[in-house]
Amino acid sequence: MKARIFVTLKGGVLDPQGRAIHHALDGLGFGGVNDVRAGKLIELDLADDTSDEDIDAMCRKLLANTVIENYRIEKVA
Amino acid sequence: MKARIFVTLKGGVLDPQGRAIHHALDGLGFGGVNDVRAGKLIELDLADDTSDEDIDAMCRKLLANTVIENYRIEKVA
Repeated sequence: MKARIFVTLKGGVLDPQGRAIHHALDGLGFGGVNDVRAGKLIELDLADDTSDEDIDAMCRKLLANTVIENYRIEKVA
Repeated sequence: MKARIFVTLKGGVLDPQGRAIHHALDGLGFGGVNDVRAGKLIELDLADDTSDEDIDAMCRKLLANTVIENYRIEKVA
């Protein structure tokens, strides 16, 4: 079983990496960029009997810093 | 217009970050993890008239290192 975890910064949290990407895109001449937010995509290859609770616990304990980040779990067939 | 860019390492490319996450998950007692691959999720807030070619050029020129990374563009309404 595969699962994808999308980790993104919560709204209002400063995103220096996104700012740097935005600045670089402007520098390359891409004018139409209003905002950039950088996040993480973690692809897990899991044993078939891994429960949703286990995946959620992995996110809360390690994959996302829930103080400043949101996470979304997408199970892939 | 919003677009999401998913940047992942190509198959066969060593993923030290994924290894480290895998090792940490094992250490936390999550046994059923076969493999972990870490990637980037970049959320772009773009002007409505931004063309697909422009978004693709942003990926090839900056957001992804096309030698070792794949990228996938997902436009969000």
